[in-house]
Amino acid sequence: MTAMTPPGPFAGSHTRRIVALGGGHGLSAALTALRLLTDNVTAVVTVADDGGSSGRLREDFDVLPPGDLRMALAALCDDSEWGHTWRDVLQHRFAGQGELRGHALGNLMIVSIWELLGDTVRGLDLVGRLLGARGRVLPMAAEPLEIVAEIVGHDPGRPDEAVLVRGQHRVASSPGVVRSIGIVPTCPAPCAEALDAVGSADWVMLGPGSWFTSVMPHLLVPDLADALVATPARRLLNLNLEVHKGETRDFRAEDHLRSFAANAPDLRLDVVLADPSVVTDAAAVRSAAADVGAELVVAPVATRGQPGVHDPLRLAAALRDVIG
Amino acid sequence: MTAMTPPGPFAGSHTRRIVALGGGHGLSAALTALRLLTDNVTAVVTVADDGGSSGRLREDFDVLPPGDLRMALAALCDDSEWGHTWRDVLQHRFAGQGELRGHALGNLMIVSIWELLGDTVRGLDLVGRLLGARGRVLPMAAEPLEIVAEIVGHDPGRPDEAVLVRGQHRVASSPGVVRSIGIVPTCPAPCAEALDAVGSADWVMLGPGSWFTSVMPHLLVPDLADALVATPARRLLNLNLEVHKGETRDFRAEDHLRSFAANAPDLRLDVVLADPSVVTDAAAVRSAAADVGAELVVAPVATRGQPGVHDPLRLAAALRDVIG
Repeated sequence: MTAMTPPGPFAGSHTRRIVALGGGHGLSAALTALRLLTDNVTAVVTVADDGGSSGRLREDFDVLPPGDLRMALAALCDDSEWGHTWRDVLQHRFAGQGELRGHALGNLMIVSIWELLGDTVRGLDLVGRLLGARGRVLPMAAEPLEIVAEIVGHDPGRPDEAVLVRGQHRVASSPGVVRSIGIVPTCPAPCAEALDAVGSADWVMLGPGSWFTSVMPHLLVPDLADALVATPARRLLNLNLEVHKGETRDFRAEDHLRSFAANAPDLRLDVVLADPSVVTDAAAVRSAAADVGAELVVAPVATRGQPGVHDPLRLAAALRDVIG
Repeated sequence: MTAMTPPGPFAGSHTRRIVALGGGHGLSAALTALRLLTDNVTAVVTVADDGGSSGRLREDFDVLPPGDLRMALAALCDDSEWGHTWRDVLQHRFAGQGELRGHALGNLMIVSIWELLGDTVRGLDLVGRLLGARGRVLPMAAEPLEIVAEIVGHDPGRPDEAVLVRGQHRVASSPGVVRSIGIVPTCPAPCAEALDAVGSADWVMLGPGSWFTSVMPHLLVPDLADALVATPARRLLNLNLEVHKGETRDFRAEDHLRSFAANAPDLRLDVVLADPSVVTDAAAVRSAAADVGAELVVAPVATRGQPGVHDPLRLAAALRDVIG
């Protein structure tokens, strides 16, 4: 008699330890894909947001900005009525004109739990248990960070002048071109659990996400960057779709790879995964990937009809083929 | 061989259907006691609060005031680390000086769930499931109510004058003496599930709690009052401790019973449960109880060292002896 259970599309990968680094909607897409491939995914999430609900909470309670952490937890929710319901509750945003306007309930819940437990990681684990999350969500540092960017043309009246712009929200919404970025404090307290996860991973993955405010900041946290360099894990970069928009105005795919090398000169990659739409000059992208040690893998990962949005199922398929 | 399981202190009562009507800390004490006696307890909770966090939410989102509902849910939480943790999260109140100051996280969660599900009772049931609640929490009406009271001496400069005072918060904190109360709207939409629970109960219990703002309002909701009159259940009134303080300044136990009769002339009681401390004239209290159809049961139910606070274990013991 032969085994009756077919291997299925995800066979053999469910014990893989995968760490995904990023923030915002890009990280959510990566996590939604990865939870199809493994039960052992750890999200390491940016803590530099200073806008919107997170910014107000950070200001009022001197806590990590909870918004990107909440979104990552929501992406890992159990695929059940219970998991989906609590995901929707956490993602619910207050409307109206009152004092709560714009706050996501999940942000308020996370801050309450932090105040109650006095422990960032235990608090996030508790929310993960509520959601039946497949995996774990951790902050990239144990204290809130501020993004500082040197931006050319931030002031439209002086298009050639470079100015220092402080704060993720202002950097992300600047009309200029980012020349370099940093974080304050420059050497923040690390999240020990995040360093451990990176150190014991089979794969670590960066992106997709807002390049300068969600993906690169991880590489500027010294302890986290060291852990990424030291880990025996294989390393993959999910290149963004619409590489030339927003923070990376007029960038090509190869410019992203050069920016990566500039921000993390010691960090080598194994794989760069790119959608065909961003590989306009295959030789140039392959060469820039090789410069950071990586093989270029081109696979369709965009959502049909929304060329700027990763499709979690296509991304899952492409990542499964890469991680084998 | 004889059965090896001892009957235990609560034997035989765990399937009893008990409905507890009230609000605030008094109802919490009753529910904490009742969840030791049965797995089938339904709280029917006042929805007239207009102060604090509940008042702000009611104003901003045109919803039932969630605070008393939240407290009742918290009192029914499962006796486990999970239940206690989520109870504490729901009860957590934001401090600081910001826009969230004074809000209980559970209130914000309940309002979010109501906005998401568009169904008051389903929303409360979901929070109950989160807490592993033993029993169910329902509103006494399907729309928010306003308390209106005729109060003598509300204006300290005119101590003999009766004025109409609107709003639970103002009534509860008035320095005067309440002569009568009403609700607006006078005939609110009922909560069908609450009427069903009353109709199919073995016991219905009123109080303890703030007399005019948490206990009597239920009797002013016409459909609920009719259900209380019609139910085949036995009816018990938990008399307050410190009967002479707050809203019922200078009241004696027998004055509470006369006030009860005035607000619900058609409603007969079976048992009035009173702490010995409030029965200063046993004959007078017994006679006033008999006037509403009830036997007076005197049993110690106060917390040692806090004579104004019901002790859930003593209250449970006394209620078990009554319900048999």
